Amino acid sequence: MDGAEHTIGIVGVGLIGGSIAVALRDRGFEGRLVGVSRAPERLARQANADALNHISGHLSEAVAECSLLIFCTPVDAIIPGVRSIAQQIQPGTLLTDVGSAKAAICNALTSVVPPSAAFVGSHPLAGSEKQGIQHARPDLFHDRCCVITPTSATPTDQHKRLAAFWQSLGAQVVSMTPEDHDVVLAKTSHVPHVAAAALASQLDTAHFPLAATGFRDTTRIAAGDPEIWTAILEQNATATIECLDRYLTCLGEFREAIATEDVSRLKILLEAAKRNRDALD
Amino acid sequence: MDGAEHTIGIVGVGLIGGSIAVALRDRGFEGRLVGVSRAPERLARQANADALNHISGHLSEAVAECSLLIFCTPVDAIIPGVRSIAQQIQPGTLLTDVGSAKAAICNALTSVVPPSAAFVGSHPLAGSEKQGIQHARPDLFHDRCCVITPTSATPTDQHKRLAAFWQSLGAQVVSMTPEDHDVVLAKTSHVPHVAAAALASQLDTAHFPLAATGFRDTTRIAAGDPEIWTAILEQNATATIECLDRYLTCLGEFREAIATEDVSRLKILLEAAKRNRDALD
Repeated sequence: MDGAEHTIGIVGVGLIGGSIAVALRDRGFEGRLVGVSRAPERLARQANADALNHISGHLSEAVAECSLLIFCTPVDAIIPGVRSIAQQIQPGTLLTDVGSAKAAICNALTSVVPPSAAFVGSHPLAGSEKQGIQHARPDLFHDRCCVITPTSATPTDQHKRLAAFWQSLGAQVVSMTPEDHDVVLAKTSHVPHVAAAALASQLDTAHFPLAATGFRDTTRIAAGDPEIWTAILEQNATATIECLDRYLTCLGEFREAIATEDVSRLKILLEAAKRNRDALD
Repeated sequence: MDGAEHTIGIVGVGLIGGSIAVALRDRGFEGRLVGVSRAPERLARQANADALNHISGHLSEAVAECSLLIFCTPVDAIIPGVRSIAQQIQPGTLLTDVGSAKAAICNALTSVVPPSAAFVGSHPLAGSEKQGIQHARPDLFHDRCCVITPTSATPTDQHKRLAAFWQSLGAQVVSMTPEDHDVVLAKTSHVPHVAAAALASQLDTAHFPLAATGFRDTTRIAAGDPEIWTAILEQNATATIECLDRYLTCLGEFREAIATEDVSRLKILLEAAKRNRDALD
């Protein structure tokens, strides 16, 4: 990465925050890394925690010394977190997050962060079923897409700085508005999560032996943390509802074709789906 | 396997039919294996085709000499196939299939097959994205569930014979009525297929870079052959529609919780889904 960042704060050091830390070290970052945790002593005992120079239980301690502050907490903790330190943010500080919903956070924080600093949203499309810094991987962001969501109020230099940061971890950076991000993610992630959860909740234990690979694949994401997903779906409610309604309409078309034995229509619907899915690979 | 089967006919020799052939050889079957194909010369050139003693382009040729005849064609070809040879079926012959929908086939064939023989449905829950006998695997059925669907008209000895056949290939055999099979499979496979196809068809090419692992997993089965899936959904229309309606109701509950910002209700729904999905692993 360029030499701009000297002290980076990571607020919430789980898989994502931890992977940022180990990825920075892996790529030769020699500055200071401060982790902020609600359970600093437990964090300090985990594997990979030595990538951090200091672990603090207090966000206000980190904001005083960090020029880049990355919130890796669940999405519903980001706005209260930034609000709680708003008065202490130093001029020039860049704040970002890694949450899966962007418009609510970015819009709320525009008026919270002082004009001399900036909050610009990030959403690295990377993760794992395994949680915690002990499972952090230096290549977690390598060749993965990272969306960043500047607004019309974002200074160009802070936009460029955030892009350079994620690129330094190997990510492919895509910039779009927070609203556009939320519409796309509703399609690619939030409605799929609801679709998978609703499928998983329909199944009786007695049917488990007859659930083969297809069912397992289709419902895998339903094992995600309900607390984290409740927050994401609530924060992206508008786009999720709009996309869910289009999904329900599409399911209704399949239902109609099956119920009326319209074989040619059903085949057309399945062919369109296959074309899209094949193109993705 | 027990020594009961001397000549086995496999009608439609793709991945499943081919894997039956190589699995039989792998487990020391020394009897005669006859493959029936619409393209016998092409089949003969494929890898693993040497597991077959003879390849015929004519089903009527195979029925004359086979005591066990396994239809591995798409589900919509099974009823016409059995009908076409009904007059030639030898006494004692056991006919089965490997299709994903059972009630329509089993009910139609009860009156087609002469009383001295029997048709009993099978559905091995095994497969692969790779098609064709060249990808056949001797362990494809090993430790996988195989549902067999005898009816009240099925002679006990033919039921036992079919169970012993699949067990000889390493499968875990579960017996249920064709109707019960179709209700369960609507939940574990047919509605998940519709759900995945509808999700895949919603996505624009422009959004592909933002479709991460979760979307890929959830929509993977949408890449299945539209022709094969049209036939399955049509053959299991009744149970699929009933299950799809319950799925739509459940999606409506998620929608309501998101739209009304009922965070506690949304969390309860997501928790129930996670509990089910976690229990599956």
